Amino acid sequence: MKKLLLASTSTLFGQSYLEYLLTELTTFFSHTDTVTFIPYARPGGISHDNYTELVAMAFSKIDKKVVGLHTYQNPLVGIAKADALYTGGGNTFLLVQQLHRLELMQPLKQKIGSGTPYFGTSAGSNIAGPSMKTTNDMPIVYPSSFDTLGVVDFNLNPHYLDPDPNSTHKGETRETRIREFHSVDPTPVVGLREGNYILINGKQTTLKGSGTARIFEAGKTPFESLQIPF
Amino acid sequence: MKKLLLASTSTLFGQSYLEYLLTELTTFFSHTDTVTFIPYARPGGISHDNYTELVAMAFSKIDKKVVGLHTYQNPLVGIAKADALYTGGGNTFLLVQQLHRLELMQPLKQKIGSGTPYFGTSAGSNIAGPSMKTTNDMPIVYPSSFDTLGVVDFNLNPHYLDPDPNSTHKGETRETRIREFHSVDPTPVVGLREGNYILINGKQTTLKGSGTARIFEAGKTPFESLQIPF
Repeated sequence: MKKLLLASTSTLFGQSYLEYLLTELTTFFSHTDTVTFIPYARPGGISHDNYTELVAMAFSKIDKKVVGLHTYQNPLVGIAKADALYTGGGNTFLLVQQLHRLELMQPLKQKIGSGTPYFGTSAGSNIAGPSMKTTNDMPIVYPSSFDTLGVVDFNLNPHYLDPDPNSTHKGETRETRIREFHSVDPTPVVGLREGNYILINGKQTTLKGSGTARIFEAGKTPFESLQIPF
Repeated sequence: MKKLLLASTSTLFGQSYLEYLLTELTTFFSHTDTVTFIPYARPGGISHDNYTELVAMAFSKIDKKVVGLHTYQNPLVGIAKADALYTGGGNTFLLVQQLHRLELMQPLKQKIGSGTPYFGTSAGSNIAGPSMKTTNDMPIVYPSSFDTLGVVDFNLNPHYLDPDPNSTHKGETRETRIREFHSVDPTPVVGLREGNYILINGKQTTLKGSGTARIFEAGKTPFESLQIPF
């Protein structure tokens, strides 16, 4: 039974890393003491070691150990051994480039499909969909493909931002960008605002946090929803 | 002698398309009656024809005709015949995918190198640098490469936005994204705010519009500048 927790962000304003999710994570990871962490998205260019240390500090508050996937000589072994998985945010292009280069995308998909709990924040949530084509990140490296895990049937847009009605800036709004995506790809998109997350237990998908998500389907007007309709 | 006009945006708030640039464009395109337009970035999924019509309306105000490159059965012929070039904004991934697919990147580079004036806005400016790796756009399609024209030695970040000191949003700021780029690529980046543009006449590079550009060099603190120091 597939088990996923896909969060828009790791950190809420004024809080510490993962703070708002710790209660949920205690339940989500209740079956294990150790979480295998995928650090490849490297926010701000941070090293794999430093990123893993940050995550370990947060997880120590709920008595979980953290092992960085990069510490395995063969990361395939790391995935095979994992009781639970967490992929942190950062740059989605870096993350996806690395997962393809190390040929981890299919093994990860199978591992999640076989019931190993998967937790993602931001870029880590992004890769749960069929492609990374609705990321907000800058294409700082060229991955060998934009295809991602496809363990859910919709794409995610984390850190979803509503258009600012007072803005005089002419860069595209998030909604315009997702409309452009739908002009070339019919995959539905969930705009997930900060503080919200999606919990998947087998066939049950629940939106958690406060308020609604914004749902984008090709050729339809986007709408607000308290559920994930896919 | 290379001649380029690279603008952050096509349209200022409350103005019509290209309005703020028309006086500059009259001088820039003074040698010709006809501008060849590259419509592949398709903002908001608009068709090539409709996009070309929008551009033709704007250019008619300064008595220039516009020919869409898509109207040539062989776009290589279109580029060879062009007296002047304009690439409009939209989605940089779409634009770059199309330029590579049609094998136009090298011919365009040579054409610009031989002195044909090139005007770009937003995505059209982005592709003047060595790569599109500092675009703000969503990766809605997978181009065969992120390499672009390289007719200037720096990358551009159009629609450059300063961090909002009052924001509680935890998505990456533009500056963070460019720092992430510099953790993997040393190419300098010019953050070009809306209303600003770069005019290149041979070896002379001038920043025009109001105020400064933000200059990012790998390993250095970003700074404001009234000139383009590359």
